[in-house]
Amino acid sequence: MRTVQEEIEKTLLRLNSGQVVKVHGAGRTDAGVHAYGQVIHFDLPQQRDLEKLRFGLDTQTPDDIDVIQVEQVADDFHARYQKHRKTYEFLVDLGRPKNPLMRHYATHFPYKVDFSVVKAAIKKLRGTHDFTGFTASGTSVENKVRTISRATVEKDDKTGFLIFTFTGSGFLYKQVRNMVGTLLKIGNGRMPIDQIDRILESGDRSLAGPTAAGNGLYLKEIIYDD
Amino acid sequence: MRTVQEEIEKTLLRLNSGQVVKVHGAGRTDAGVHAYGQVIHFDLPQQRDLEKLRFGLDTQTPDDIDVIQVEQVADDFHARYQKHRKTYEFLVDLGRPKNPLMRHYATHFPYKVDFSVVKAAIKKLRGTHDFTGFTASGTSVENKVRTISRATVEKDDKTGFLIFTFTGSGFLYKQVRNMVGTLLKIGNGRMPIDQIDRILESGDRSLAGPTAAGNGLYLKEIIYDD
Repeated sequence: MRTVQEEIEKTLLRLNSGQVVKVHGAGRTDAGVHAYGQVIHFDLPQQRDLEKLRFGLDTQTPDDIDVIQVEQVADDFHARYQKHRKTYEFLVDLGRPKNPLMRHYATHFPYKVDFSVVKAAIKKLRGTHDFTGFTASGTSVENKVRTISRATVEKDDKTGFLIFTFTGSGFLYKQVRNMVGTLLKIGNGRMPIDQIDRILESGDRSLAGPTAAGNGLYLKEIIYDD
Repeated sequence: MRTVQEEIEKTLLRLNSGQVVKVHGAGRTDAGVHAYGQVIHFDLPQQRDLEKLRFGLDTQTPDDIDVIQVEQVADDFHARYQKHRKTYEFLVDLGRPKNPLMRHYATHFPYKVDFSVVKAAIKKLRGTHDFTGFTASGTSVENKVRTISRATVEKDDKTGFLIFTFTGSGFLYKQVRNMVGTLLKIGNGRMPIDQIDRILESGDRSLAGPTAAGNGLYLKEIIYDD
C-alpha cells in the first residue's frame, strides 16, 4: 500500500541529495480518505528557495499528490502538536443508482433520508462533548472530550449529494465516519434523533450507527491558531 | 482494455441463459471519456419485466457501470441511426496545481485563459458548418457538415473549472476535443478569435489547436426526436 507520507519522503530524499528527511503530518487519514488540506512539516539541513522546493515536490511526487504551498516556520513548529482546527467534509451519494464516476469520492447510501431530520440531529453534535461513543473502541487516547464548532449538512442542488461539514479542535479515530453513519441511520428513520444524546452521555459505541465508508471523507482544511 | 459494451454484453449473456445478445450504442466514446447519458439498444428473444431487467443489468455489471433506465421500444428503433441530439460536456481544470482528485475527470490546462475571449470565440462554432478542420484527418465519414445548436462555456464558481457544453445533431470523430483544444489556445492568446472562421472555411486541420485530452469529456445526454 502506497502512502502519501512515503511518497513525499521518497521525493525529499532525492531533493536532499540522499539524506533522509522525516515528514510529520497534522493527522493521519485512513485508506480511501481524501485530503485537500493536509499540512506537514519537515526539517531540512539548509535554507532553500521555497517556490523551487514546492515546485520540485509537486512535480516529482506522483500525479495524485499536489504540493500547493510551502512556508518556512519557526523551528519549534509541529504540524500535529501546534494548536489547530480541522475541517472535514463528508459526501454522500443518495442516488439510485449511484453516480459511478464518484464511486471513489462519495459514500453511496441508496436509502430514503429525511433531510430535515438529519439537519435537526446534527445540531446535537455541536459544542463540547465526550465523544467516546463515536470513536472506535480500543483507541489509546485517554481524553475523549472534543469541541465541534461547526456541524452542518447541506444538499448539493446539482448532484443531490449530501455534504456534511465538521470543524473542530480535534477528532477521535473514526469519529467523523461514525457520526455520519449515525446521522444517516437517523435520517433513514431507523433511530430516533435523541439517541445522539444517549450516545454522548453513555459513551456506548454500540448505541451509535455503523461507520460510514471512508471514500466520502475529505480532510478539507487545517487552520493553526497562531 | 475493458469496454462498457463488452461488460454489458457479458452480463446480458448470463441474464439470457447463455444466448448471445448484441448491444448497439448511440455512439462510441474514446478511452478515458466518460458517459453519463449513453443510450444502447438490444433485442431479447422474449418479453421481460423491465425493472427486473434494469436491476439485474445494473447490479451484475461492474461497479463503474450504471444502468439507469430500461424502456421497451419499437422493433425498428436503433440507438445510433434514430435521429437524435447529443450533448457533450468538457471540464477543464485551470488550477495551479490541478485538483489531484479530478485528474481522471477533468483536463488540466495550467495556463492563463481569458474567459471573455473564450466566450466570444465559442459563439463562432454555433450553427451549421463543415467541421472538417475540427475532425481527425483520415476519418471515413463523407459528409462533415454538422449543426451545433448549443455551444457555451461557463466558469464553475466553486471549483474555478471551465465547463464547455455542446449540443448537436451529430459530432465528428474528436470534434469536441479539437474544438476545446482550439478554444483554449485562443483563450491563452496564442491564436486569434477569427482563426475559427478560417478553420471552418478551409477545412484545414493544421490551423486548429491541439486535441484536448479525453479525460475532461463527458457524453452527457442523448435526446431522440421521437
